[in-house]
Amino acid sequence: MKIILADSAGFCFGVKRATQLAFKAAEENCPICSLGPIIHSPQVVEKLENKGVKVVERVEDIEAGMVVIRSHGITAGELADIHARNLTPVDATCPFVKKAQDYAALLCAEGYSVVLVGEKDHPEVQGIISYTRGAEVAVVADREEAQRLPNKTKIGIVAQTTQSFENLRQVTGVCLDKSKEVRVFNTICDATSVRQAEARKIAQQADLMLVVGGFNSANTTRLAHICRELQPRTYHIETAAQIDLLWFADAKTVGITAGASTPRWIIDEVVKRVASFEN
Amino acid sequence: MKIILADSAGFCFGVKRATQLAFKAAEENCPICSLGPIIHSPQVVEKLENKGVKVVERVEDIEAGMVVIRSHGITAGELADIHARNLTPVDATCPFVKKAQDYAALLCAEGYSVVLVGEKDHPEVQGIISYTRGAEVAVVADREEAQRLPNKTKIGIVAQTTQSFENLRQVTGVCLDKSKEVRVFNTICDATSVRQAEARKIAQQADLMLVVGGFNSANTTRLAHICRELQPRTYHIETAAQIDLLWFADAKTVGITAGASTPRWIIDEVVKRVASFEN
Repeated sequence: MKIILADSAGFCFGVKRATQLAFKAAEENCPICSLGPIIHSPQVVEKLENKGVKVVERVEDIEAGMVVIRSHGITAGELADIHARNLTPVDATCPFVKKAQDYAALLCAEGYSVVLVGEKDHPEVQGIISYTRGAEVAVVADREEAQRLPNKTKIGIVAQTTQSFENLRQVTGVCLDKSKEVRVFNTICDATSVRQAEARKIAQQADLMLVVGGFNSANTTRLAHICRELQPRTYHIETAAQIDLLWFADAKTVGITAGASTPRWIIDEVVKRVASFEN
Repeated sequence: MKIILADSAGFCFGVKRATQLAFKAAEENCPICSLGPIIHSPQVVEKLENKGVKVVERVEDIEAGMVVIRSHGITAGELADIHARNLTPVDATCPFVKKAQDYAALLCAEGYSVVLVGEKDHPEVQGIISYTRGAEVAVVADREEAQRLPNKTKIGIVAQTTQSFENLRQVTGVCLDKSKEVRVFNTICDATSVRQAEARKIAQQADLMLVVGGFNSANTTRLAHICRELQPRTYHIETAAQIDLLWFADAKTVGITAGASTPRWIIDEVVKRVASFEN
């Protein structure tokens, strides 16, 4: 039996970096917490808690020590509060999110009406908006919402890093109809689309596909859906323990991929378990 | 019989302005010529020639006096030559074309790779390119040509003023895939689309449609084609003399429009001729 493990399986660059920074900070001899769970993985959050990293929801609840800022960033107000309380920030904001924050600020400073393509209530979006220093930012989910925007002298566009490129393209097309000048910073990180493209390729070669990640993880569920369209023998699992030997009847090639919040050790356990069936 | 004359029939803003400037300059007691025919209307060119405005093709052929720069502009090199030869320019460049020249220059100065949506050999396009002071400008006719462009750090887009908005939107969509930053100045003048939209509206109400303009005028031919799709009784004519009374059998409503290079007096003669059939 041949196993094809996707290069893009698991943590994206930003999540990996944030997790590493949190584990490293946890080694210091200092009180430490993270503002919200560091990533959407209970296993990782639990490991960090065992090393003393408490999860808190509000800056006001922190008395002293280090505060890990998670990968999708925080608002400018929260950052100011961290400094005001003499806490030490461990900035694990994804560098791609930081770019989106910086470009939104730049567009505001240069007089553009800013359009942010994304989900209104997402913490990343709330963070990006906060860096425009009170300027009005229109958050639009898609082309239809963009069509309701008023005309403006000049429009500047940024996107939540996890948006689809096609959505950004469509919103840009609508904004072109609403302003004589449109300036777009494509702040989308392609980790999601790269992972999906690789999963498609593997699903076409494999007799059986395993997609590893939380059942409540939107990106993992989407990944499993994409694979199932090409290979009906696709199984979405959270851990190696859920694998059933019966699935593997006549399987010559097994493909494995994982969502963005699935830690490496869970993927390794899955690979090990599948490899054990070869004997 | 009811006559509906399109508000947008005939000269656009830029052509009207250029013609007025040329006729006004012709009143000065000074040698005068135009660099190329002032507009694509033999009748207007003939009238100006009768007032002493010679058509010349190259700056080198002009000895002294005033030079009328036509609505779609000239190159920076030609303008420099005009000054070097101590000639007096009468700048009838359309203000919308001038904006496209200025924005192309601004984009180059700010380090953008400039993409110009338009026809490579058109004098307006050649003029716009010349104002980027030697920077490389990629002229693309459509989405397919844009797809062949290499990736760039940042792309700036301007359009030939007579391009369709949909074409600009499509090229912008392709460029978004080739650069992390895309800045678009929509330099399209909507005179053409407004004229076409009004012609469509009138053609739907009229029993007969007259489209006035040179048989060699691309925009008039296109206008006649659009009207014919909605009203098969559409006639493309150059002058009132070509109108045939037989066309008007049972016509209760006659629609009239004209291309961008059709002078007012020709339109007036057509209206007068049609009105005479009412008796």
